[in-house]
Amino acid sequence: MKLIATDMMQEINLRMESIINHMSKNGIGAILVASGANIYYTTLRMFRGYVYIPLVGDPIWFVVKPNIFEKENHLIPIHKPEMIPGELEKLGYAIPENIGLEFDALSYSEITRLKGLFPNSQICNGSVPLSQARMVKTDWEIDQIKQDAMHQSEVYRRVVHCYKENMTDLELQIEIERVLRLEGCLGFTRTAGSMMDINMGSVIAGDNADAPSPFDFSMGGAGVCAALPVGANGTTLKPGETVMVDMSGAFNGYQSDMTRVWRVGDIPEIAYKAHDCSIKILRACENIGKPGIKVSDLYAIAEKIVAEEGLQDYFMGHSQKAKFIGHGVGIELNELPVITARSKVILEKNMVMAIEPKFVIPEVGAVGIENTYVVTSEGLQSLTIFPDEIQEL
Amino acid sequence: MKLIATDMMQEINLRMESIINHMSKNGIGAILVASGANIYYTTLRMFRGYVYIPLVGDPIWFVVKPNIFEKENHLIPIHKPEMIPGELEKLGYAIPENIGLEFDALSYSEITRLKGLFPNSQICNGSVPLSQARMVKTDWEIDQIKQDAMHQSEVYRRVVHCYKENMTDLELQIEIERVLRLEGCLGFTRTAGSMMDINMGSVIAGDNADAPSPFDFSMGGAGVCAALPVGANGTTLKPGETVMVDMSGAFNGYQSDMTRVWRVGDIPEIAYKAHDCSIKILRACENIGKPGIKVSDLYAIAEKIVAEEGLQDYFMGHSQKAKFIGHGVGIELNELPVITARSKVILEKNMVMAIEPKFVIPEVGAVGIENTYVVTSEGLQSLTIFPDEIQEL
Repeated sequence: MKLIATDMMQEINLRMESIINHMSKNGIGAILVASGANIYYTTLRMFRGYVYIPLVGDPIWFVVKPNIFEKENHLIPIHKPEMIPGELEKLGYAIPENIGLEFDALSYSEITRLKGLFPNSQICNGSVPLSQARMVKTDWEIDQIKQDAMHQSEVYRRVVHCYKENMTDLELQIEIERVLRLEGCLGFTRTAGSMMDINMGSVIAGDNADAPSPFDFSMGGAGVCAALPVGANGTTLKPGETVMVDMSGAFNGYQSDMTRVWRVGDIPEIAYKAHDCSIKILRACENIGKPGIKVSDLYAIAEKIVAEEGLQDYFMGHSQKAKFIGHGVGIELNELPVITARSKVILEKNMVMAIEPKFVIPEVGAVGIENTYVVTSEGLQSLTIFPDEIQEL
Repeated sequence: MKLIATDMMQEINLRMESIINHMSKNGIGAILVASGANIYYTTLRMFRGYVYIPLVGDPIWFVVKPNIFEKENHLIPIHKPEMIPGELEKLGYAIPENIGLEFDALSYSEITRLKGLFPNSQICNGSVPLSQARMVKTDWEIDQIKQDAMHQSEVYRRVVHCYKENMTDLELQIEIERVLRLEGCLGFTRTAGSMMDINMGSVIAGDNADAPSPFDFSMGGAGVCAALPVGANGTTLKPGETVMVDMSGAFNGYQSDMTRVWRVGDIPEIAYKAHDCSIKILRACENIGKPGIKVSDLYAIAEKIVAEEGLQDYFMGHSQKAKFIGHGVGIELNELPVITARSKVILEKNMVMAIEPKFVIPEVGAVGIENTYVVTSEGLQSLTIFPDEIQEL
């Protein structure tokens, strides 16, 4: 589904309604957006510039670069942000008392410069209402993620054809990357935060699953370079090991997130047991994950099932454990809500989350699956459609 | 060359000397490093945590995650940054009056939290001494970038074998990406700043060279998605067009940056003229680029040569122009110095810079080359060794 201009404005207006609703709850009179992810969220474009969102009145796009959009409505070309207050005055916009800037997405230097534009206002964290709005997707956003998931599933179907005996985990990953790219994957993983470096995803085999990573991914992997310690470490795929594939689902401005497991030769019973436990957790989450339920209940049910099966030692890592079992996904790979024991978020219709209860079995590798779900009144609906079972390579 | 532990400490100590020298010039008593790029620069590791660099005394590594380094010297495991002042006190470190934090690399929220650790100190921009230190490379760093350039050149040699008639620019890029990855490329481009999104580089053909991008790359390209408007746009490569290849040189924690141009069929004389002008600019820069020379002189000589040839309309873009002709390169793709008309930087031995005088010829495409250079007392020495001429695909 391509947006034509009118649909695009309708879609943008829907998002604005949600942002303004959250601004209002947080007592914010206007937000000045500048980060790439939020520029895209609020305009469906990517440009160097600013989007001014007032509580009352039309949003204004201040565009530094490129200058090719100049003929459009709601758009004012500027050379530098210091021109914004004067332009707002010309438009008859009063500068509100409380202005939100993206404290979580912009550098301290950037925020300091933007604060200077509004010397008489109180500056607060505009990242909060923006991420709250982004947490609940529009139908169009869900459709984008559905398309991502469809392409991603199509590529996962071809994983088995990427494999050749005696290849390394990295070689397998490289062949999957090529198939992903030819299928339309953008080859770029947009993440939030400063310690989330990744290329097109990760293929983790055998004991490498237990190598801890500094990044906030559910599984680690040593990588092949100290500067990017995540994912495949270049060892040959061996019988008796699992191969966890968690590769990019970014085919448009959005992305899906999916993990499946393959095996080389026979693997021990404990790996199957833990994998089945992951599926059991997902089935339980799918059932209870309805609007009104606490996100922390999803975490709690996962912990309960893991304890019943006596698999705590392997859950979400072995020598280093992740403290979440899932996360929102959308324009960025790591959005709200984060599925933790202490989350205060209540599920709402149209939230989209990846849930990834995973286990690390020493000397075998990682098992467990990850789906991207949308919250519906019937429970969680998976957008990533692919067999759950461990497949043979 | 692999670092063994002692060499690693020697290399780190060299960097510390330089950082401390710049701290001293800037009146900074200590820096607390937290960004990935600077954690790597100061430790040759990537971890979630902090490196405390005092003007006097040993630097301390505070590691949140992973916890596997615990047995090493200079290393203190912590759960949260709020533990740092207490640990420093235990070690007998006095908290200085002026503490530097990475204002350019960390978010406003992150800096605000870290500022809270030092309520009695003045907080200033620690990004400044760190980027000044990183601007001048150690011999070991130059060796890393040399290795990057060697691998990158090897891949460029195979570009012609990646090409098939009637393929799109994107299909060519995907085949180059695979060769890069098999050659050891990490597949991740580490950049500084919030509007520098890129996958593994760009292949730009024909008129797509003139599509302006919001990102701060020398050339644009429309890309194939509004969320990532840069590089290949998916059109079929046609006779009469140039194909500019500016793909990743990131094979270790460092990277080289190199651009070369191929053509499909015959291209007009003006394209050759502009390409030769680019080479002429590089030869001039190579000659004058010695320690003591102003970076702005490199820009000035480029502008002078372009004017002499009457090629101003095409220089550094046509419908939108970049205002720099090069940039430092190292751990990040865009380091200091930026080669602009107004740069105040004086060249020093061992600075490493990519210089990329490029032209966009309407209806033909982009021409010009880019090399990564190290500053020596003899002038600029290119690390990216590959024929300069436009090659046929």
